[in-house]
Amino acid sequence: MENSPRTSAEAAEPRELSHPECWALLGSSGIGHLAFRSQPVGVDIVPINYVITRRQLFFRSGPGTKLEELALHPYVAFQVDQLQDGRWSSVVVKGKAVRLAADAEIERSGILDLVPAQPGRKSNFVRITPDAVTGRTFAAQ
Amino acid sequence: MENSPRTSAEAAEPRELSHPECWALLGSSGIGHLAFRSQPVGVDIVPINYVITRRQLFFRSGPGTKLEELALHPYVAFQVDQLQDGRWSSVVVKGKAVRLAADAEIERSGILDLVPAQPGRKSNFVRITPDAVTGRTFAAQ
Repeated sequence: MENSPRTSAEAAEPRELSHPECWALLGSSGIGHLAFRSQPVGVDIVPINYVITRRQLFFRSGPGTKLEELALHPYVAFQVDQLQDGRWSSVVVKGKAVRLAADAEIERSGILDLVPAQPGRKSNFVRITPDAVTGRTFAAQ
Repeated sequence: MENSPRTSAEAAEPRELSHPECWALLGSSGIGHLAFRSQPVGVDIVPINYVITRRQLFFRSGPGTKLEELALHPYVAFQVDQLQDGRWSSVVVKGKAVRLAADAEIERSGILDLVPAQPGRKSNFVRITPDAVTGRTFAAQ
């Protein structure tokens, strides 16, 4: 229980985040959770670090399974959460993930400034173009 | 960069977590990220709080879309992450999610002690039986 006057039922009630609040939260975090389809019947989830440029998300990826799955099933969900001031917030981006091929687009994206969490294995660049961005916030237990 | 002697290339290198390390991390967190199939072509991801009883995961769910999706596509991925002592760790559980119907099973699971993050809307109980549990750890940037 937090030591704050905001313990009324109203403050504890979850509420939707506005679009600007969602983007502010996405911009304040550097790490999120990428959910994507995986063969044969399931889903997978990986933590990734990312950058945002002109309301698109960019991340690095190593070669291998994840990239192959994204080529087959490009629709992904990406989630970021935050615990701050006794409130827990979560933003989910749904959209299409596409591997970048053009050098100019890779340079413009700003992704080259992103230090990958796991160095030396992330030579592919992926863009997520959001179709929907939603968020919720509620008082932390 | 952390102020610690563990800045060698070896310490920075990611490594797999052992099975006991994975379960210890799962047991030390109360919140994770559930990825599941959603209609028509995509995936969804939601943060959930959970309990572990006898190496099965249990969470509460409100009625609605998430439960319906799980009934159609029960294979899920569940992820928990942790930032501790300058290291970032992530554990992923893959398995089958089933809604609990029997009162006895619900009571044995311990889920009734779990305070839902969003009160009053979580009257269904879901069990994830793990098929695979994997984890990685690496030095935080």
